[in-house]
Formats: sequence, C-alpha cells, structure tokens
Amino acid sequence: MDQQLNEYLQKNRDSYLKQMIDFLSIPSISSDSTHRADVRHAADWLANNLSDGGLEHVSIMETEGHPVVYADYLHDTSKPTVLCYGHYDVQPVDPIDKWTTDPFKPEIKDNIIYGRGTSDDKGQVFMLAKMAETILAVKGDLPVNIKFLFEGEEEIGSAHLDAFVDQHIDLLKADVLLVSDTTMIGLNEPAVCYGLRGLCGLEVRLHGAKGDLHSGVYGGAVQNTLHAMVALMASLHEKSGKIAIESFYDDVAPLSADEKKTCDELSNDTALMQELHVNALVGEPDYSTVARIWARPTVEINGLFGGFEGEGLKTVIPSTATAKITCRLVPDQDPAVIGALMKRHLQKHLPAGVTLDVQLLDHAEPFAMPLNHPTLKAAGKALKDAFETEPIFSRQGGSVPIVNTFHNKLGTAPVLMGFGLDTENFHAPNEHFHLANYDRGLRALISFLYALPETM
Amino acid sequence: MDQQLNEYLQKNRDSYLKQMIDFLSIPSISSDSTHRADVRHAADWLANNLSDGGLEHVSIMETEGHPVVYADYLHDTSKPTVLCYGHYDVQPVDPIDKWTTDPFKPEIKDNIIYGRGTSDDKGQVFMLAKMAETILAVKGDLPVNIKFLFEGEEEIGSAHLDAFVDQHIDLLKADVLLVSDTTMIGLNEPAVCYGLRGLCGLEVRLHGAKGDLHSGVYGGAVQNTLHAMVALMASLHEKSGKIAIESFYDDVAPLSADEKKTCDELSNDTALMQELHVNALVGEPDYSTVARIWARPTVEINGLFGGFEGEGLKTVIPSTATAKITCRLVPDQDPAVIGALMKRHLQKHLPAGVTLDVQLLDHAEPFAMPLNHPTLKAAGKALKDAFETEPIFSRQGGSVPIVNTFHNKLGTAPVLMGFGLDTENFHAPNEHFHLANYDRGLRALISFLYALPETM
Repeated sequence: MDQQLNEYLQKNRDSYLKQMIDFLSIPSISSDSTHRADVRHAADWLANNLSDGGLEHVSIMETEGHPVVYADYLHDTSKPTVLCYGHYDVQPVDPIDKWTTDPFKPEIKDNIIYGRGTSDDKGQVFMLAKMAETILAVKGDLPVNIKFLFEGEEEIGSAHLDAFVDQHIDLLKADVLLVSDTTMIGLNEPAVCYGLRGLCGLEVRLHGAKGDLHSGVYGGAVQNTLHAMVALMASLHEKSGKIAIESFYDDVAPLSADEKKTCDELSNDTALMQELHVNALVGEPDYSTVARIWARPTVEINGLFGGFEGEGLKTVIPSTATAKITCRLVPDQDPAVIGALMKRHLQKHLPAGVTLDVQLLDHAEPFAMPLNHPTLKAAGKALKDAFETEPIFSRQGGSVPIVNTFHNKLGTAPVLMGFGLDTENFHAPNEHFHLANYDRGLRALISFLYALPETM
Repeated sequence: MDQQLNEYLQKNRDSYLKQMIDFLSIPSISSDSTHRADVRHAADWLANNLSDGGLEHVSIMETEGHPVVYADYLHDTSKPTVLCYGHYDVQPVDPIDKWTTDPFKPEIKDNIIYGRGTSDDKGQVFMLAKMAETILAVKGDLPVNIKFLFEGEEEIGSAHLDAFVDQHIDLLKADVLLVSDTTMIGLNEPAVCYGLRGLCGLEVRLHGAKGDLHSGVYGGAVQNTLHAMVALMASLHEKSGKIAIESFYDDVAPLSADEKKTCDELSNDTALMQELHVNALVGEPDYSTVARIWARPTVEINGLFGGFEGEGLKTVIPSTATAKITCRLVPDQDPAVIGALMKRHLQKHLPAGVTLDVQLLDHAEPFAMPLNHPTLKAAGKALKDAFETEPIFSRQGGSVPIVNTFHNKLGTAPVLMGFGLDTENFHAPNEHFHLANYDRGLRALISFLYALPETM
C-alpha cells in the first residue's frame, strides 16, 4: 500500500477511533419508536462526518421510515463508479442484563471494541466513510467515482429501500456495489463473499374448533391444532435431515469440486460444537457443515406457538396454532417457486379436522457471482495486500436483500467485503469488533479502490 | 317433590338469582396473584351466605394457598352424612376480547346466565348451598347430616387440598361425597356420572445451542429445537390417531358391551361437528366418539412454544422449545406408570443435538364406580323426579381429583351429579349456564337428600 496513505492512517488512528466511538454512542435502534430521534441523530452525525471528510452532495434523504444518508464524489466519468452500501441503524439491546459493558458506551479492551453496532454495521459504515476521507486527505482525489447510500432500516427489513431505489435510480447508478456487512472466515482470514442465500418466509396458521376446548370434555374426539401442526411441521424434513418437500431441490445448482473442497476444508465441527455448546451437529447428509450453510437450502421453523404458555398446566385443546418459517435458498432457486412448493406440500399433508392459512412474507433471491468476475479479482488483490494472506472466496448463509435490489434494478456487480466475525455477537449482548480487522480492513478497502480500475 | 319446598323455591327464585349474580361478580381467578384478594372475597361471601342459610360451624379454613370454606349441619348420627364438594375459584378470562358480555357482570338472556364461573363451578356451588338452605327454611331440619367443603384452588390443580384432607380427616368423614362439577348429556337430559378420566401432566423442554442463533449464519448445520420438538411430539401418535407410546394401553380396562352400546347410542358426530365448527372428528380408530371421550385415554398437547411469536419474521434458530402435555387416563391406568412410560418414550425418540428436560406436573387417578351402587340409585331417582325423564348413567372425560382423594382416604362413595352442559364454554370466553337446568337441578339435589336415607 502507498506509503503516504499508510502513514496517514497510522497518524490518525486515535482520532478516527474517537470519532467511531462518538458514532457508536448514538442508540440508533430502528425497531424502537422511542429511539426515533436517536436514529435521526445518527444520520445527522454520519452526514456531517462525510461532509467533513471531503465528500460532496451530502444529504439526508427522507423515506416513509428512517432516512437515507447519501453522499458522492464524482469527478471523472472515465473512471468506474462504486456505490457503497451500509446501515447506520442497530438491533435492540435486550436482554440488557447480559451485557458486561454499556452497549452505547463503547469500550476498547485488548484491541477489541465492545458496543452495539460495532461490527453490525456502524463500525463498518464508518470504515467506508474513512476509506474515502483518507484518500481525499492524502491525494486530493479518488481513483474511482464514489457514491454512498447508508440506510437506517436494515435491522427492520429495509421496508422502504426498494421504493427509494426506484425513485432515485439515476442517482444510484454504479458499476460496482461495495457492501461491508458480511464477515471474514476468522481473525486474519479475510474473505470476499461471492454468494448469499436467498429467503422465502411464510406464516402457517391452523384453525380447528371454534374456540379452545376443554381437553377432558372433548379430548380424544377432535383434532388438536397442535397435534396437526407437529405432524405437518415434522413432514417438512426426512429423518436424515433432508428436506422432504417435493421438487424442493430441483433447481439447486451443484457445488463445483473446488467449491466443495473449500467448504470441506473450512468445516471444523468440533470447534463449532464447542462454540455453540451442543453435543451434535445435524443437517442434510452428504454435505460438510460449511457446504450446508453456504450452498444448500434450508427450511427453518423460526417460531411455533399455540395453546397455553403460562406456568403449570391448562387442560385446553388449542383452536389455533401458528408457525413462522423461513426457507434459505441457493442458486438457482426462485423464492416464488419455493413459496408455491411449500404451500402445495402443506395443503397435501394437512391433517383432518383443521383448516390451513398460509401467508407468504419476506423473500429474497439467492445470489452467486461468477468466480472469475473482475471485481472479485480486485477485491482478492486488495485483501491480500492488506492482510498479507490469500483471501478465501466464500459464500454466506444469510441474505442481504439490497444486493439483489441493485443487481436486478441497476445491473450493479456486488462486492461483499466485510470485516466482522461470526463470533462477534451481532444481534446479541456483548457485540464487539476486532480492531485488528478494522485496521487491515480499512487498508483493504482503500487498496480495493485502487485495484478496481486496473481490473475492469 | 314436596309441595311446600316447591312453592318456596318458586317464591324465592328471583332472590336466589340475585344472590348468585352477586357471587359470580367477584373475579375469583385463582391462578392470577393480582386476584388474590378477590378469591378471599368470594370465600367470605360464600361463608356468609351459608351462615345466613342456616348452616353451622361455618368457617374459612386456611391452606398454604387459597382458603377452604367449610360448613355443616350434623343433628342426627343415625342419618347418613353427605359431604358436598365444589369450588368457588374460576378460570382466567383471556382472551377477553372474545367475550360478548363482561365476564364478571353476569347477564341473563333467554333463561341463560352468562359470566365466568356460571357453570364451572360457582353456579353449582351456589345450588348446593341453596339445596340445604331451602330445606332448612321450609322444614327446620335436614333428612341427612351434611358437610360442605368448597375449595378455592380447583382451577390450579387443587395443590393444597390433599394436605387439607389429611389434616382434617375426622372433620370430613362422610358416607357420600356429592359433587356438582360435572355435566348433563344435554338440556333436559340428566346424568349421574359413575366414571372420570384421570390425568398425568408434564412439561417437556428441549435445549439446543447456548442461545438463539441467526438462521442465515448457522441454518442447515445445527439442530433447531423446534424441529426436534415437532419430530418428538409427532412421535406420540400414529397416523391413525392411536397413541404410539409403548405399553400405554396395557392397563386400560375394556368397556362392557352395555357401556359400549350406551356410548355408541350417545355419539352424534354430525351434531358435534356442527357445534364445534369442524369438518371432521379425529381420534383413536374402532371407538365411537363418546367411547373415546369417556373410556379411552389420550395424550394431548395443551401448549407448545419456542422462537419468535411477534409480527412478521425473525430469522432465528430457537435455542429452547417447550411443550405442555396432559394424558387423560382411564381405569386401570396408573398416572405414575404413565408418567414413566412418557419419559421413556421421549428419551428414546429424542432427536440429536438437543437435551431433554421432563417435569411431571399434576396427576389424578381415573375412577369408575360399580353401576349397582345404592348412592347411584338414589341419584337416579332424584334426577328422574326433577327432570321427569330417565337419567343416563354416564362417564365423563375430565378429571375431578377430589373424587379420588376422598374415595382413597375416607372410603366415601362419590355421587357426581352436575348440571352444566359441555357446550357451556367453561374455561373459554362466554361461559354460561342454562337456568332451566339450574331450576330442575336444585330440585334434584333436594330430592337426592330425601332419597338417600331410603336406599342406603
């Protein structure tokens, strides 16, 4: 990496971290309406910081929910344009008693920063801002054109982002979408993510008798919606762990031998079992753990409830039961097709004495880029420079709906280069972020902007 | 029935109903600690009412939970002694929005009284009190010795009643136990119940990973406790509806040909399906609906929950899942044996990757009296007099644990002569009680006290 840039980063490390702590101290919890002003405050803070860093056209743009922060630096139409995406909102902090530090008073211990949003995603949003600021401060210009789109509703499903993109399609046009909201393989094990699982969410409701019944008076004669529900839900999987829904795997693209090898090598079942405190791992047979997470679909029951939940017993036959399900999808599965297959299966296996109501909820298409795409090469080179090791071309099991939005609407090639770790407790108490990854990650992001024009 | 008694009942009908409405207006919900004072208030009200009605030794007797209301009238040791049992506590009222009247402002419409506790069991407790009061007012004496034992914890499993009976075994000695907490076959179809199902309750908890996991990051690799739970719960029944637990049916006494005939004749599946708004009835094959409810055991899931229950989706893999189960038992099943069989089954069918925690909760032995017992004959005669039709000798699918307590500890012959209807929504919104059954039932209770000395 360029000596001047490196020196500037070293000289300004403390000042940057102080700013990051300022940003993290704002409790921008998007799901909690009592924090509405805090979310706005975080947007203001970010806009000012981008402005101070030399970015132009900085603006807070309204949506029907929390605002979007936009900024750009567009000085040479012959250069590629990079659209940087991240989110400045954070998850709630419950259960607060499980935190060992105040979630909104970030603390640094042993080169790890603790606090809500450190890794997901304010810490990484801050890195994207500092990537541009550093180059502008040192060089007075950028090797690419750049646009920033930071949203405040990622943790509540990005409900208004699609509409925002539609309304501002010209403003957001770019060659590359750079997303820093994914994870590395491990400390000092950088990764470029080239694939994400999609999603098909549904809510299943069963209705039985007109109301809850006394299990003494009617038990043995009428369908219990929970009996029907457990039978129906148990029918979704074979005992082996394989999904039992007809045609579910039909469109699944097989893993290449190379991809399979990477997955198998990265699978460490013993370590994972220790990390999660479980005595066994389960899942689809014939695939390693990492292959199952990266490249195989799932049908996951996220919630199930019916009948009595209080202390002790209540002898009711519940009249309704509800299940919330998300299917994680892989290329080339189509969320709409999977939704239809799910509906057909549920109807076909519906036990007698109940009626079925299925609602399709969120969906996102799975995604995988060709491994030889030039942007992936630029990202690989940048990570190798910064981390001094070969990066892994990885997939991830989660969904980042924004990637699809941009790819489908704008044809933008995504680069998912994140610096969090799966063990950093995002969405949980004691979220944290390794500053070693922050330091090298920031260098990698800067290198990426220089590598990009060379490969495209 | 005696003319004087009949006239007295007619003259005092309005005054009695006003008192009953007073009693029903007290929200004596035993399971809810915020209603502790209301439960006590109901006990006070009942004690005062018994006292005003001429009963003696009226007292509110403490237990470790809600108190027992006791009263007696013991004037002639040569006469048989009847111990009357009922409960003055009621079920919670949730879901409150499904009620069309205020559950604690009873309303009479078309000779039906609506409100929590009208049929289960405050309305019937009130009838027992008025049975004695009426005879004493008119005749100045009773044809039997009588004792009242009204508890305030029936709806929460009568946790302290066994200890209370042990402590007061002499006080409670009686020849006959009269329980008005069961139901008739239909309006104007009286019944004496000679058998009750027992109960074995348990709570099943599954524990998976150390906490809820992100279904994107881990989905496909680790056990989801809800997947394990639905598989485990689905294993409790065969597809036919038969219970799949090994040895579960071993001790079930078969129905006699006569009993089977009664059950078959009383089964009206079309009417039941209409009543419950279901398109099919399900249950153990080869038994009619009434036989399944009266004389066959069940394994019923009363509640099941785990993971996300809010609006929309949350992509978690839940780390715990809970099921609440009650088995209804028939002669000669033993709750302790069934509890052990359940535990063995659950352990044996436990899916990989989760741990199991089973807690045995309430239990009650099943019960059936010989059909030629003299008290059953006296009850039959009294019902025929009051309802002008032959009563049915029935069983019921519910449990009345007190029946066993007294039969086992005191050798007391139980007479289960209740006046509720299965359709009267006990434990549910819009509980009600037909006053036609109240009127005839009160007459039947009075007649029973006169018939008893003749048959014993």
